[in-house]
Amino acid sequence: MIAKPIYVLNGPNLNLLGEREPHIYGHTTLADIEASCGRTEAARKHGIIFRQSNHEGQLVDWIHEARREADAIVINAGGLTHTSIVIHDALKSFSGPVIELHVTNVHRREAFRHHSYISFAATAVICGLGPEGYGIAVNAAAMLAARMS
Amino acid sequence: MIAKPIYVLNGPNLNLLGEREPHIYGHTTLADIEASCGRTEAARKHGIIFRQSNHEGQLVDWIHEARREADAIVINAGGLTHTSIVIHDALKSFSGPVIELHVTNVHRREAFRHHSYISFAATAVICGLGPEGYGIAVNAAAMLAARMS
Amino acid sequence: MIAKPIYVLNGPNLNLLGEREPHIYGHTTLADIEASCGRTEAARKHGIIFRQSNHEGQLVDWIHEARREADAIVINAGGLTHTSIVIHDALKSFSGPVIELHVTNVHRREAFRHHSYISFAATAVICGLGPEGYGIAVNAAAMLAARMS
Amino acid sequence: MIAKPIYVLNGPNLNLLGEREPHIYGHTTLADIEASCGRTEAARKHGIIFRQSNHEGQLVDWIHEARREADAIVINAGGLTHTSIVIHDALKSFSGPVIELHVTNVHRREAFRHHSYISFAATAVICGLGPEGYGIAVNAAAMLAARMS
Amino acid sequence: MIAKPIYVLNGPNLNLLGEREPHIYGHTTLADIEASCGRTEAARKHGIIFRQSNHEGQLVDWIHEARREADAIVINAGGLTHTSIVIHDALKSFSGPVIELHVTNVHRREAFRHHSYISFAATAVICGLGPEGYGIAVNAAAMLAARMS
Amino acid sequence: MIAKPIYVLNGPNLNLLGEREPHIYGHTTLADIEASCGRTEAARKHGIIFRQSNHEGQLVDWIHEARREADAIVINAGGLTHTSIVIHDALKSFSGPVIELHVTNVHRREAFRHHSYISFAATAVICGLGPEGYGIAVNAAAMLAARMS
Amino acid sequence: MIAKPIYVLNGPNLNLLGEREPHIYGHTTLADIEASCGRTEAARKHGIIFRQSNHEGQLVDWIHEARREADAIVINAGGLTHTSIVIHDALKSFSGPVIELHVTNVHRREAFRHHSYISFAATAVICGLGPEGYGIAVNAAAMLAARMS
Amino acid sequence: MIAKPIYVLNGPNLNLLGEREPHIYGHTTLADIEASCGRTEAARKHGIIFRQSNHEGQLVDWIHEARREADAIVINAGGLTHTSIVIHDALKSFSGPVIELHVTNVHRREAFRHHSYISFAATAVICGLGPEGYGIAVNAAAMLAARMS
Amino acid sequence: MIAKPIYVLNGPNLNLLGEREPHIYGHTTLADIEASCGRTEAARKHGIIFRQSNHEGQLVDWIHEARREADAIVINAGGLTHTSIVIHDALKSFSGPVIELHVTNVHRREAFRHHSYISFAATAVICGLGPEGYGIAVNAAAMLAARMS
Amino acid sequence: MIAKPIYVLNGPNLNLLGEREPHIYGHTTLADIEASCGRTEAARKHGIIFRQSNHEGQLVDWIHEARREADAIVINAGGLTHTSIVIHDALKSFSGPVIELHVTNVHRREAFRHHSYISFAATAVICGLGPEGYGIAVNAAAMLAARMS
Amino acid sequence: MIAKPIYVLNGPNLNLLGEREPHIYGHTTLADIEASCGRTEAARKHGIIFRQSNHEGQLVDWIHEARREADAIVINAGGLTHTSIVIHDALKSFSGPVIELHVTNVHRREAFRHHSYISFAATAVICGLGPEGYGIAVNAAAMLAARMS
Amino acid sequence: MIAKPIYVLNGPNLNLLGEREPHIYGHTTLADIEASCGRTEAARKHGIIFRQSNHEGQLVDWIHEARREADAIVINAGGLTHTSIVIHDALKSFSGPVIELHVTNVHRREAFRHHSYISFAATAVICGLGPEGYGIAVNAAAMLAARMS
Repeated sequence: MIAKPIYVLNGPNLNLLGEREPHIYGHTTLADIEASCGRTEAARKHGIIFRQSNHEGQLVDWIHEARREADAIVINAGGLTHTSIVIHDALKSFSGPVIELHVTNVHRREAFRHHSYISFAATAVICGLGPEGYGIAVNAAAMLAARMS
Repeated sequence: MIAKPIYVLNGPNLNLLGEREPHIYGHTTLADIEASCGRTEAARKHGIIFRQSNHEGQLVDWIHEARREADAIVINAGGLTHTSIVIHDALKSFSGPVIELHVTNVHRREAFRHHSYISFAATAVICGLGPEGYGIAVNAAAMLAARMS
Repeated sequence: MIAKPIYVLNGPNLNLLGEREPHIYGHTTLADIEASCGRTEAARKHGIIFRQSNHEGQLVDWIHEARREADAIVINAGGLTHTSIVIHDALKSFSGPVIELHVTNVHRREAFRHHSYISFAATAVICGLGPEGYGIAVNAAAMLAARMS
Repeated sequence: MIAKPIYVLNGPNLNLLGEREPHIYGHTTLADIEASCGRTEAARKHGIIFRQSNHEGQLVDWIHEARREADAIVINAGGLTHTSIVIHDALKSFSGPVIELHVTNVHRREAFRHHSYISFAATAVICGLGPEGYGIAVNAAAMLAARMS
Repeated sequence: MIAKPIYVLNGPNLNLLGEREPHIYGHTTLADIEASCGRTEAARKHGIIFRQSNHEGQLVDWIHEARREADAIVINAGGLTHTSIVIHDALKSFSGPVIELHVTNVHRREAFRHHSYISFAATAVICGLGPEGYGIAVNAAAMLAARMS
Repeated sequence: MIAKPIYVLNGPNLNLLGEREPHIYGHTTLADIEASCGRTEAARKHGIIFRQSNHEGQLVDWIHEARREADAIVINAGGLTHTSIVIHDALKSFSGPVIELHVTNVHRREAFRHHSYISFAATAVICGLGPEGYGIAVNAAAMLAARMS
Repeated sequence: MIAKPIYVLNGPNLNLLGEREPHIYGHTTLADIEASCGRTEAARKHGIIFRQSNHEGQLVDWIHEARREADAIVINAGGLTHTSIVIHDALKSFSGPVIELHVTNVHRREAFRHHSYISFAATAVICGLGPEGYGIAVNAAAMLAARMS
Repeated sequence: MIAKPIYVLNGPNLNLLGEREPHIYGHTTLADIEASCGRTEAARKHGIIFRQSNHEGQLVDWIHEARREADAIVINAGGLTHTSIVIHDALKSFSGPVIELHVTNVHRREAFRHHSYISFAATAVICGLGPEGYGIAVNAAAMLAARMS
Repeated sequence: MIAKPIYVLNGPNLNLLGEREPHIYGHTTLADIEASCGRTEAARKHGIIFRQSNHEGQLVDWIHEARREADAIVINAGGLTHTSIVIHDALKSFSGPVIELHVTNVHRREAFRHHSYISFAATAVICGLGPEGYGIAVNAAAMLAARMS
Repeated sequence: MIAKPIYVLNGPNLNLLGEREPHIYGHTTLADIEASCGRTEAARKHGIIFRQSNHEGQLVDWIHEARREADAIVINAGGLTHTSIVIHDALKSFSGPVIELHVTNVHRREAFRHHSYISFAATAVICGLGPEGYGIAVNAAAMLAARMS
Repeated sequence: MIAKPIYVLNGPNLNLLGEREPHIYGHTTLADIEASCGRTEAARKHGIIFRQSNHEGQLVDWIHEARREADAIVINAGGLTHTSIVIHDALKSFSGPVIELHVTNVHRREAFRHHSYISFAATAVICGLGPEGYGIAVNAAAMLAARMS
Repeated sequence: MIAKPIYVLNGPNLNLLGEREPHIYGHTTLADIEASCGRTEAARKHGIIFRQSNHEGQLVDWIHEARREADAIVINAGGLTHTSIVIHDALKSFSGPVIELHVTNVHRREAFRHHSYISFAATAVICGLGPEGYGIAVNAAAMLAARMS
């Protein structure tokens, strides 16, 4: 079977990574991260589709697209993580592995970040590893996709 | 008074109906449902405007449009049912009858589906009748519209 | 297979329908409703058994009777909807479709009417359609019974 | 206008008054209380209908009867006070004054006795005056009935 | 034993009775009520000390005074009913009967009026009888004082 | 002292035992259980009165009867376990031992079955032993009755 | 109609403004604020009565006084904001506009400052504008008073 | 330093202002408000960018734009106020003052409007001043921007 | 198949049985109980392994040992009942029947004793039978083990 | 630096110490306690200012006075402990050590005494040592004042 | 009667005192504290047994030992304070005075430190006095032991 | 600086990995996992100390040991994750990176597994990657240790 790409989907405000509140999120930009994802072993095997949107509906559309086009999804839904049943429902319709990702350890931040609807639909969760978490998540997604196929 | 159409509005992920988790939602597609709505008595009297979007803002825009263009609204807001005060507010601005619809009996599913903001703004609620619920809701909406006029 | 009747069971205070708080419940009496149920398509196919009691135990007895005698149950349990695990348990023992019915949209009323034990045991829920809801529920019950057989 | 009787309705376990847990409820029996109600000024003006049942449905039936037959209701619903929406609904259908009565001060007892559905439907509440509370409640009910007529 | 007076203590805003929100509280003033208390049987036997203050501390001082000077306390603590542990504690130090009084049925008003600290320290509670509740409470307090002595 | 019988009281829906949801409750009927209770050591010493009703009020009446007629009560109140303060109050008036019984381990079922009002009034609780639990409970009740006398 | 003054009422601890926790409240004193209120357009039209007390009862007395003497109230109730039903009740008796004011944005501080009883009785709420908030509130109160008259 | 504009951002359903539920929101339209904002002192100093969208993602994009282009933000997020962590996060990335605005006093409306995520990220909150609140907020924002620079 | 022993495991503070708070727990010691367990029918068939520890880890180790060595477990986990997910997890790994046991009726004691993690993993629960409960539990465990094999 | 006195502030109902509910509070009076405080080492070094009031506002005034006049505060706020944000705020403005004191162990009493606003503002808490707690608290306050200076 | 020692028991992580998070706990080590306890008046009268363990079971064993060997217990249970019903139960079996001790004022720290099971079983509680709290607690324990004997 | 080992600590029941509930946890044993950790890049650089215990106190001791001996900690605390403040406190005393690990996605399991005290003290969290998660966590810990040094 031919490998399909891994979708890396980024939600609202992640376009500001590297600029917004650097004492929390650090100085690496989303473009830097996309580049480093492209250098992973998973990228060599699957290819990476890397996107960002501030619109919940757009993220849902991309997840639907991934149902046909992707072997795995890595998703950092930003603030929608805690409120979006809609993304939860979309991810449930995806048959491959889903990794929920956060740059920071959300459990050490405001209480409203401790609950995640994404977690109920994800295969795995990784948070607190900083920008390097993306590369690790992408490779882990490839590993899970291999295990399931 | 000339009859205006009944708006049937579908929220996020309902474009996947018939494909997504068929053990929960069945195999009927949204196109099948649109067709069967077109064969109802209500369709003959009012006409049906049938739409779907994954974007909350789009649904709000359509409800605003319905304020001038529709006699009644049937809305299956999907996962937004449980989180969207914005759609609640839009529906409150509509003076005709509103029927909240769900394909499944949401009360037998996850706890986060037991609360609905739409219910606070709806005239009536119908859930658990499967795809046939659409035709029943459309006819009921026509009945309510007649009663109010 | 010979069609069995549809049981329409009404709980406490529904004998006052048409008299009690008409600004909430309207002026149609339970006798009017029974008559209009008798004119439905479902009545022609199944026949209707229409009953009311203010006693929870009586309702349980009737549901047990329905296990042998009925193809479907439509139940408006009145105030017991929100408190009766006993009726919930009885309905769970019924193998055909169960439709929970309310004349009003209970979600727009007092908070203690927002939770229903009946919903956990019902196939479908219809509320807010007024007295006409009975006829719609009876026909929908017949449709569900046909789908299951 | 001819005065109608005041209904004094007693719920479950009140038939044991004077026997059950006398350190809480005292030694006066329900028959003693009925007799002393018969000696009140209100009894002279209205007459008293004094009843007790352990069945919620029976209490509902009596409240419905009171809609035609009584000028006021005094109700000590016993343990149903805290759980019965059904009695609440029945009392709401009664247009005269309703006084909720308890022999003890329920607020100083178990936490599950601190909430009352009856209170939401009652005109007034009297608790903690012991068996004498009945006579006081009956006279107060007559006073309220006079004020409303 | 010589009878001591019954203290009737009124809390914040009750000086406005008859003026403030008459659709809720009616038109009788606190002076009217004081006068009618003076005409009760209890007044003849005990005498009435009738006071009002907007200061929680003043009410506490009066309750302390009542420990030596009064046979019973009738207290309408107004909005302090729901928040004052301090008055609760003071009343607990009083060995005679305490009747908590409210002009309206507080259970049918805002949710924050459903909880009362006074109830935990009172012998009895009377609410919803309107201004006439004062006279009834004063006589009931005399009855309780007689029973305890 | 002459031994009085042990009352075994069964609440709503237990008449369906052996028929209803056998994957949860098994295939033994209530008649089978009554028979096996009759073969216990406790039956030889005390005799067994074995009853079932779907009416809360009937159960209360039987508990009142047991105050004079029984040495102990074993009660499986079915769904009323979780909602009936009224049965709780009746059991509190019984001076002998009370054993609360459930066929299944209610704590492994729906959350609304985790709370029991009966437990607050019972001497002991036994659940999850299946139909054999009845015989064990009856013998344990006899043991407790002997210890108390 | 002759303009009456605007009452600016300050609750407990506001006499320390400018001294207490300046990293939160700044260095402007209450006297400075009173002076700047005196220079507003509203002061020219209405005059300002500016007061502070650490006693809840005193604040209630002033609100009662304002019922006759004032066109509007601006109130910064300090810590009483979150606990005083009594002030809420007093403000409800005032027929003119009421503006609740806080120097800081209370929603970004401790959780116990997020709930306000004053808000339920106020026409408008202004917080977080610092000492300048007083002048803005006073002018806004004059605007609201003009709109209502 | 050259003054940059003040962004006035309006969320879902505010395009209906003046039409929707006028008993709550009044008859002034959003266009009227935009015009009156243009006549403020702040408009003369900063200029006003005035926008409305029913899409959460659009509002986020505009807040990001404001990071470079604006001196202050005034935001009335409509129903998103109570649910959008995403807008909260975007506002946190803005270094100038943010004023949360509501036309009505949201604290006197439904309970689900009492909590605001925007408040956690705002400098100040103004609600209940009606359409005039916009002009006041815009001037206050200019004042805060001057204080911070 | 050769019968394996029944493990009777006792948690913290049960070594004090007979000494600690005898008004709650009685005077029978754990040694007495061990002896009486040895005289049961179950002991003759299976043998009894009877242990006590104040260390959660030790109890886990014994449960692991029981996976190979025992036909059933009777466990009185003392205060760990209410807090130990770890024991819950260990019991879940045991394939035979597990009976949770308490000497007292924990539901009539402090609220923190009303929740049990053990119950979620147990086959059956017995409480309130006093020291005799051990013998009953051991025999019941043998009965369940026979039924499962 | 010259030592300033230690303020010992007592809230509502503490004037009754030794009289009120002696089974809870003992027989020592507040005057006895004041005398024994005067004999402590701390009294010799700092002097003691010992006061009591039933008025929250008075306590706030004394705390404000202590900002200039005292080296430390020992406060037993009585029932205000659990409700007064106002005293909390006043104590926060005091820069020296604050010891919260209770005669009894409040955690073993009613649930509403388990939460303390004073604790959030205090340096240390001492409760349950009886009247001797005062002397211990005064000396501890002197120790803390020495450590901070 | 010969004085027995005072047990000073320290729970998990207290062996790190002086090393761990010194900005919270200071630099004094547990050995320093043991030494200073040895210099108290209580040590001269009773002697001190000073111990630390990271094992809950070990602490329970020591409390059991103290039942025979000690006149009083001072316990700083560290993080077990908030979770251990087992230690609560053990302390309840001890007939002498128990003082719960914390170095810091736990009420000003994380919310999960605000609840203590130890407090329900302790005679007194002391927190926030720093390492000196140990000496004060030991002397207070001796005082309480003298009062009880 | 010479690299110190990475501690991999496993809590209760993890010794059963590969045996217990394989439909949840899979068939890989802890010994397999230890071996595969030994083959990671991190093992080559740091070395691995791999341990398991069913005793909370033992885990605390090992974390204390790690303060001197380790560069990073990977901890799978099993069921203690959700209840142990003690381990939380120990981890807070460790200055290097801490990775919380779970084999399964705990958020898709029972509700009591959704809260973790470990997360409040951890640098990062990884769950749901199966046994392979260990190797990924060990390498991530090495990466974090390098970033911090």
